[in-house]
Amino acid sequence: MDSARNKCVLLTGGAGYVGSHTIIPLIESGYEVVVLDNLSNACKGDNGQNPIPITQVEKLVNKQVIFYDVDLLDYNSLSKVFDKHLFCCVIHFAGLKAVGESCINPLTYYRVNVSGSINLFQVMKEHNVKQLVFSSSSTVYGEPQFLPITESHPVGQNLLNGYAKSKYYIEGILQDLCNSDKEWFVIILRYFNPVGAHPSGTLGEDPTGVPNNLMPYVAQVAIGNRPYLNVFGNDYNTIDGTGVRDYLHVMDLVDGHVSALKKILNSDEHGAVAINLGTGKGYSVLQVIEMFSQISGRKIDFHIVDRRSGDCASSYCDASFAKKYLGWEAKRTLKEMCEDTWRWQSLYPQGFSTKK
Amino acid sequence: MDSARNKCVLLTGGAGYVGSHTIIPLIESGYEVVVLDNLSNACKGDNGQNPIPITQVEKLVNKQVIFYDVDLLDYNSLSKVFDKHLFCCVIHFAGLKAVGESCINPLTYYRVNVSGSINLFQVMKEHNVKQLVFSSSSTVYGEPQFLPITESHPVGQNLLNGYAKSKYYIEGILQDLCNSDKEWFVIILRYFNPVGAHPSGTLGEDPTGVPNNLMPYVAQVAIGNRPYLNVFGNDYNTIDGTGVRDYLHVMDLVDGHVSALKKILNSDEHGAVAINLGTGKGYSVLQVIEMFSQISGRKIDFHIVDRRSGDCASSYCDASFAKKYLGWEAKRTLKEMCEDTWRWQSLYPQGFSTKK
Repeated sequence: MDSARNKCVLLTGGAGYVGSHTIIPLIESGYEVVVLDNLSNACKGDNGQNPIPITQVEKLVNKQVIFYDVDLLDYNSLSKVFDKHLFCCVIHFAGLKAVGESCINPLTYYRVNVSGSINLFQVMKEHNVKQLVFSSSSTVYGEPQFLPITESHPVGQNLLNGYAKSKYYIEGILQDLCNSDKEWFVIILRYFNPVGAHPSGTLGEDPTGVPNNLMPYVAQVAIGNRPYLNVFGNDYNTIDGTGVRDYLHVMDLVDGHVSALKKILNSDEHGAVAINLGTGKGYSVLQVIEMFSQISGRKIDFHIVDRRSGDCASSYCDASFAKKYLGWEAKRTLKEMCEDTWRWQSLYPQGFSTKK
Repeated sequence: MDSARNKCVLLTGGAGYVGSHTIIPLIESGYEVVVLDNLSNACKGDNGQNPIPITQVEKLVNKQVIFYDVDLLDYNSLSKVFDKHLFCCVIHFAGLKAVGESCINPLTYYRVNVSGSINLFQVMKEHNVKQLVFSSSSTVYGEPQFLPITESHPVGQNLLNGYAKSKYYIEGILQDLCNSDKEWFVIILRYFNPVGAHPSGTLGEDPTGVPNNLMPYVAQVAIGNRPYLNVFGNDYNTIDGTGVRDYLHVMDLVDGHVSALKKILNSDEHGAVAINLGTGKGYSVLQVIEMFSQISGRKIDFHIVDRRSGDCASSYCDASFAKKYLGWEAKRTLKEMCEDTWRWQSLYPQGFSTKK
């Protein structure tokens, strides 16, 4: 098959938060999408139907998506998916992502994230699929040594949790892989803090159990699922003492993936390139709460509690390389992040399992 | 079973160079030894017999050793070994170790070393075996920033090959594992350059193909298997311009493992402790060749060629922590390293496959 005509993309973890949202612009851009997910952290479908996030996407794009319930640790099943389809590229979202949990069960994180990725890369190599977009994380930078964080900021130093280390290790493995075989072209996307939801309100982040991240927690307080939220420290050296982060609308983030994919398919470059995906702008916890309260018209109670170990005062990126290299930049504002989160939370107060 | 009475130790990679030598002092100290090896790099036995290094050990100690042909990547088979035996500790030697090869096939190195180790640790956890001695490497230090290298020397910076990175990653995983569960006690042994052989001459290093390391190469030139050796650079800032390394007799190295095991079994400590194993003394390539030539009475031809990328001028350890913490120090001289290598090479010019 002529690779220029082959527009079939594999999304590992494609039933997850960022993965499922990414399907939409991919299909709108004319790609065929195959999704692989072990559903360890996604809502299963009824009676053999596709998982709910996928069926929601199918409704939005009015097209069926091929889905495989396969675990990256299952080498043979993974290999069979590559036997069936000729992929032009893999976008590798699959992985566990709860920082706190990774400190409690590090082996699980290393097994799923690192061993799973090694399996994937091996199967890709065996099938001569050597083009990859990898979901990394700003946590590989550890505590920022300078702001804004550029891609040349040191990585891997004093990483305090298994999640960050697992992403750092996978990046290192990809670097070695690209050094060993010049046919590979890998774009490593270092996400800052993805939030928000599809503007339809029918697709969004659906954390299992207690949310690990600020925005879904705030949304659950606003909707009345939780009485209040804890704010971890208000004595940081920031605008109001609370932690400042670079929040990024998920629809901007997924556009960044499409840009990365196009770069990979339309250039002759090789090697591994790491790129920050963020807005380049930081907002404090209190600013997010305030904006969410305005948008939702709800009072959002919070308690100031002790700092959480491993948290830094401020983290936000220099996003200029993404603009230069991919022609991508984030366009959506904090207001839109809150509006779209609130629409999703209002329509689906219990996430995908909400009875309609 | 009372763990104080349980003296059964699992050796992963126990048919390899360091692993097989370690069996001897363990059995002499009254331990029961179970060996697990996938024989990817060791001499298989005839007709269902134990692999040759193991049968050689059995002759030396006059005792049978339980052996399993199991790959660490085969989770179920590995788990069954733990179902059958109650181990007081695991000594984890298994892993690929050719630096050059790890640059050509990094995925294989990460799969075997990292994913294999993660599987092992998971199976250990499930069987409540939380005591481990791990074979790490001085390569985790990268290019030395100061000499002698202490255990507090930075690790993981600018590591140039997949072998070193795989060891560094496994150390990181072990640190997280010990942080997450205070029942674990892990001693990480950072080997400098193990050389030599058992003084009987019946057991030694048997590299497949072209030797990666200096001493076996020198021995093969001395015996006439190879015409000459390449010396990679003679313009380093060292005593004679050639690279200086901390060579360590394998029988000293294996004594270090017994000391580590005893420490683990006889103390109430927990956590992960990294320890250098070396003599603390460096010898140049030319000094090793000269000594080997004297001992063997053979002329050893060599060609000076360009430096090899990734090599540093000098590397030798501060071995004082091993003495303080384990009561261990290397006792054997460079002369003994050469004598024992030469005895093994003379008796087994083709390694274990030598027809007797």
